[in-house]
Amino acid sequence: MSKFEEKTLSTQPVLNGRVIQVRVDEVLLPNGAVSKRELVKHPGAVAVIAVTEEGKLILVEQYRKAMEKLLVEIPAGKLEPGEAPEATAVRELEEETGYGCDEMKLIASFYTSPGFADELVYLYEAVGLRKLEQKADLDEDEFVELLEVTLEEAQELVQAQRIHDAKTLLAIQHLQLKNR
Amino acid sequence: MSKFEEKTLSTQPVLNGRVIQVRVDEVLLPNGAVSKRELVKHPGAVAVIAVTEEGKLILVEQYRKAMEKLLVEIPAGKLEPGEAPEATAVRELEEETGYGCDEMKLIASFYTSPGFADELVYLYEAVGLRKLEQKADLDEDEFVELLEVTLEEAQELVQAQRIHDAKTLLAIQHLQLKNR
Repeated sequence: MSKFEEKTLSTQPVLNGRVIQVRVDEVLLPNGAVSKRELVKHPGAVAVIAVTEEGKLILVEQYRKAMEKLLVEIPAGKLEPGEAPEATAVRELEEETGYGCDEMKLIASFYTSPGFADELVYLYEAVGLRKLEQKADLDEDEFVELLEVTLEEAQELVQAQRIHDAKTLLAIQHLQLKNR
Repeated sequence: MSKFEEKTLSTQPVLNGRVIQVRVDEVLLPNGAVSKRELVKHPGAVAVIAVTEEGKLILVEQYRKAMEKLLVEIPAGKLEPGEAPEATAVRELEEETGYGCDEMKLIASFYTSPGFADELVYLYEAVGLRKLEQKADLDEDEFVELLEVTLEEAQELVQAQRIHDAKTLLAIQHLQLKNR
């Protein structure tokens, strides 16, 4: 048994959704007390750092219902069942931006909200970026607008809070570290 | 109306939890189609970059039920109702680490999982860190172990995937950029 492990006493499923599953577990704490954990299961996702030959970072602006606002983010998307993260990264880059690449290089992986969710994001860097002759189709419920910005412009978008999510900040810091 | 806005047609609440609220919204998409969005509302959180006089980064190891494993993270915690993020940062640092500070400097804020959750994390850097004479009490359902590591050791923890969450990677990148 792992240090501080919380043994599950009972599980109450509350949502079996298209994207997430939500449940409430009753757990036995290390001190013998009983508590509840509200947990979100997520299939995992990928995000892609894609920089053009001209040194521009490719971003997508989309409406995010959870915040009821537009956010500018690096291209990203959920894993489909059985899909390897690298294949998801290639697919999402093609669908959202119309760019392909020679190679997807894994930069990092990270849990986004370990306090309540198991979502794991694989962050890739697209190597050998090239424009596709034909743009792949977006999912039918996705609407995004493409932006190509310098690193300086990306930092201005952070200041303006139009870029305001963890994976895109990680991507920008990665490029800052790489460029030094 | 904002570009790409998704108008809510109906809302189905599925969980009114202690930490999160979950609901499923039926939305009208920009193309006139109808879709569903599974949404998690979260009170928001803070995370604290705390470096000792000896240049060691303060980390906490804790069991994370969503992943069923131990993770090493920077000190963090949820906002209490009506609590200013800066006060939460001071409180969480004291409770989890036994350190106080002269000033909490806001480094960044970010949504952790904009695809399904509205959790916003405020990332602070503790300035003028000092050990408290008496350690504040942890929440009754919190069990953490303190680590103090060099930046190099932190990067080894990333390689070993014992550090494996977005906010802690952002903190490490921030320190790498600052130290150059």
